[in-house]
Amino acid sequence: MTVTPASPQKIWIYDTTLRDGAQREGIALSLDDKVRIARQLDAMGIPFIEGGWPGANPKDVQFFWQIKEKPLKNSELVAFCSTRRPHRAPEDDELLQAILSAGTRWVTLFGKSWDLHVSAGLKTSLEENLAMIEDSIGYLRSQGRRLIYDAEHWFDGYKHNPDYALKTLGAAIAGGAEWLVLCDTNGGCLPHEIAAIVEEVCNSFDLQLNPSPSLQAEDFHDRPRLGIHTHNDSETAVANAIAAVMEGATMVQGTMNGYGERCGNANLCSLIPNLQLKLGYDCLEPQQLTQLTRSSHLISEMANLAPNDHAAFVGLSAFAHKGGIHVSAVERNPLTYEHIAPESVGNNRRIVVSEQSGLSNILAKARTFGIELDKQDPVCRQILQQLKELEHEGYQFEAAEASFDLLMRQAMGQRPQFFGLKGFQVHCVTQDDGSILSLATIKVCIKGQDILEAGECNGPVSALDVALRRAIVQFYPEVKQFNLTDYKVRVLGGTDGPAARTRVLAEFSDGSQHWSTVGVSYNIIEASYKAVVEGLEYGLLLHHVDPQGEANATIGSISLLQPSP
Amino acid sequence: MTVTPASPQKIWIYDTTLRDGAQREGIALSLDDKVRIARQLDAMGIPFIEGGWPGANPKDVQFFWQIKEKPLKNSELVAFCSTRRPHRAPEDDELLQAILSAGTRWVTLFGKSWDLHVSAGLKTSLEENLAMIEDSIGYLRSQGRRLIYDAEHWFDGYKHNPDYALKTLGAAIAGGAEWLVLCDTNGGCLPHEIAAIVEEVCNSFDLQLNPSPSLQAEDFHDRPRLGIHTHNDSETAVANAIAAVMEGATMVQGTMNGYGERCGNANLCSLIPNLQLKLGYDCLEPQQLTQLTRSSHLISEMANLAPNDHAAFVGLSAFAHKGGIHVSAVERNPLTYEHIAPESVGNNRRIVVSEQSGLSNILAKARTFGIELDKQDPVCRQILQQLKELEHEGYQFEAAEASFDLLMRQAMGQRPQFFGLKGFQVHCVTQDDGSILSLATIKVCIKGQDILEAGECNGPVSALDVALRRAIVQFYPEVKQFNLTDYKVRVLGGTDGPAARTRVLAEFSDGSQHWSTVGVSYNIIEASYKAVVEGLEYGLLLHHVDPQGEANATIGSISLLQPSP
Repeated sequence: MTVTPASPQKIWIYDTTLRDGAQREGIALSLDDKVRIARQLDAMGIPFIEGGWPGANPKDVQFFWQIKEKPLKNSELVAFCSTRRPHRAPEDDELLQAILSAGTRWVTLFGKSWDLHVSAGLKTSLEENLAMIEDSIGYLRSQGRRLIYDAEHWFDGYKHNPDYALKTLGAAIAGGAEWLVLCDTNGGCLPHEIAAIVEEVCNSFDLQLNPSPSLQAEDFHDRPRLGIHTHNDSETAVANAIAAVMEGATMVQGTMNGYGERCGNANLCSLIPNLQLKLGYDCLEPQQLTQLTRSSHLISEMANLAPNDHAAFVGLSAFAHKGGIHVSAVERNPLTYEHIAPESVGNNRRIVVSEQSGLSNILAKARTFGIELDKQDPVCRQILQQLKELEHEGYQFEAAEASFDLLMRQAMGQRPQFFGLKGFQVHCVTQDDGSILSLATIKVCIKGQDILEAGECNGPVSALDVALRRAIVQFYPEVKQFNLTDYKVRVLGGTDGPAARTRVLAEFSDGSQHWSTVGVSYNIIEASYKAVVEGLEYGLLLHHVDPQGEANATIGSISLLQPSP
Repeated sequence: MTVTPASPQKIWIYDTTLRDGAQREGIALSLDDKVRIARQLDAMGIPFIEGGWPGANPKDVQFFWQIKEKPLKNSELVAFCSTRRPHRAPEDDELLQAILSAGTRWVTLFGKSWDLHVSAGLKTSLEENLAMIEDSIGYLRSQGRRLIYDAEHWFDGYKHNPDYALKTLGAAIAGGAEWLVLCDTNGGCLPHEIAAIVEEVCNSFDLQLNPSPSLQAEDFHDRPRLGIHTHNDSETAVANAIAAVMEGATMVQGTMNGYGERCGNANLCSLIPNLQLKLGYDCLEPQQLTQLTRSSHLISEMANLAPNDHAAFVGLSAFAHKGGIHVSAVERNPLTYEHIAPESVGNNRRIVVSEQSGLSNILAKARTFGIELDKQDPVCRQILQQLKELEHEGYQFEAAEASFDLLMRQAMGQRPQFFGLKGFQVHCVTQDDGSILSLATIKVCIKGQDILEAGECNGPVSALDVALRRAIVQFYPEVKQFNLTDYKVRVLGGTDGPAARTRVLAEFSDGSQHWSTVGVSYNIIEASYKAVVEGLEYGLLLHHVDPQGEANATIGSISLLQPSP
């Protein structure tokens, strides 16, 4: 069923995370974020990276300057711009001048395809719009730029007035555009519509539908290529882009993680593996493709958005298996349960431990930690039972594997006792200047010795973290290397407000290894504290530190700490 | 381009949120949750609701009993089950017996289509598998049940061994199944493959491809109908299901919000409006369709998962507009920027206020609060400036409209002063029994009078909430009606751990109206406190309470509170 060209057709991936992606509600990228994202896309070998609209946004001007100082290695950086204003010469149009100053070899110019938008939006005549498209492209070409033309609202425009929509593409060709990119700007189309309309475009112009993989100017022969730009308002952006590629589009515009206005743009993290692994097109080097998962997560971190665990191909759950029988089957023959090899996109198969887990899951999971359990061993059933109880309280070990490892070791009597916790108190108080000071005191027991320490910080959890580290560092200097790298809070049971249980997930790193822990409590500070304590404890375990705690100090149980003076 | 049958073809929506949806990592539905979700789907008029697998899960047995006591009004409840075990008579198979005891009119039986799964998974012969399918269906029919047959791994099975895969369908027809549902269990197919394979199935059997809208048994005429069940591992589940419908499938299986194992199932919240509003099929009554957004949010609440704001059709951002020119254009002619009318699925157009907002957005937003601002008014620019500064600090007003309204009123000098805050302190301390007590003291100033109050609770934020209400209730008894209904915490800047800024979103209700506020701070308690204070303040504003605070008490500025004895 799969289309496999004799020699794989090159598809040029065009990333617009930095412009269209940044339109997503909740994203606000700093200049530094933008540069880091561009470097990551460059490392992956994405052919085109749209950097922004230099005329419309001062931050974007700086971005292009900064990249110019240390150019990209693999990717073409593209500046984005609209056609000139009505009744103005291109050389007098400040937006076109701004785009020239960005100094990129490639420019993407967008223009109107839908007659309604010309008269209602631009408030100009249909003829003037055609002139705007042709002149703007012609002028930028005369200034040595190579042109990609984004036909905004193309599909809706074509549905309403096909003759005029085709004329706008004709104007772009006359101006000298090398790629005509058809945009489903409102995201309302379905794949069969995209396929039919792209086919009609192919029949209307002399286009290069199977171009050579070269980007040399002379390989364009004045016959433009086709591209596609889709949005996810119908939840079909990926399928829409694929439909266009199968009809001859050779440029695919999209964003990492599908970020974008409203419901987002076509998700490159799904499009690239679909095109390359399933349809046999040539998008990236196989080695670059294995960076997809890492890039997706890195970019979500820079955008300060939680990664979508359920994302296709790159999500934490994309290759997760949880049913009991299922898990043994997938271990025997992965192809029967996985549509691609997770490693090809840099992801991993995961055996999920959950309330619904059977014994075989617990065994498989233990194996990933190097622990061999026996199905007959009552320890196994004990772990399963404890897991169910903790999950009922709101614990989740799916993203807190260090806590799960500690739980298994506890059941097996193999959890070392590094320190015993005797209690803590936290105090937050408003200061004269309106700021709030947080103070924490903690008492731990190591080698039979009670140690009382205090810490202060701007937040209560960091104050506790400071105090705990101070208390144990003299025995375990390794803790200095452990950093809390991420911290997530989830309020459980949406309707109880602040009296609800809180689950905290914490991630730690020692620079080379990463581990994550979980804590749950009605008190957000206690939940955080539990996760932080297990994080430090697990770090010590990973570093093979000998425990110095006394045998009867139980980790996790907290007894009275008298208020410190 | 749109297929519009003369008389709209009925498509039977089959919801499996309660079974396949519940397989999603992180979902754990209680019996009560399941019943509430079923009632909601019933209210929407979803034709088939799969309730669970009674033989495999004790909770599911109870679920069917509970629904039997108070039957659904519009929907058919379906029990799910596998074929009998190898070499066992159906009447001796406890799973088939369990399904009979569920007492539903309809049963969905799933069986193997892929030869590999028969030999490696079931460890039986290909012939025995055919007998298992035919007998199990035949037996359940003989017991008065009507049968839907889910052909597990159908598409992969067909790709590997089409002859055998077709034989399994033949066995289901011979047994008496009324619907053959083709499943892309691993979610690896693309739409063109689905379309081609469904077409081949249609050519292989005598099927009802344009059945009458009746569900009467006699309308099946021993000619089964076709259905489709897709997963989202390629991010094309919705397009895959549509492709099958366009080839003749008349049952679409999916889940609300696309919940499901790994990357989820086909999302009914996107499929239903695509099929009905764009392709002209008959899925639900138009009035029922307007409940889609509300149902989606309700179900995410019951599943205790944050709604996906960027979901197609039902997401908070699905019809959000943020660019300045764009907003004025969409107000003039919505059709040019919106693929469907948001009201048709019960959603709303939203004007988004953000850092990138222009003045026209501020004006449009103010209008939604009944405030008429003048573009020339310096207050407008002041609001815009303040908005940018606060967003830079991490505030977001997109989901905290009450806080934004207060900000506008403040700039206009129209924010009433209900109380002045003089300071607070919070104290958390471990008790003898290991539990943690939280104590809060707060000082407010109302009518020139300083009021010091204390509160205790199991968490620090609830302790503060208790103390604040105690302090102001004597002046404003209305606060007793205001409940904090939701509380969300987001740690900003993923890499700073607990020293990072925290944003808290709080939602309040007085039983009829809802409002939401935001607070940001390096201190999670202060961030929560800010949101709670504005929530109570806004409630008083909505209730048109006369402020009794003194003129110089500034809301939001906090001065020293001496530690209470």
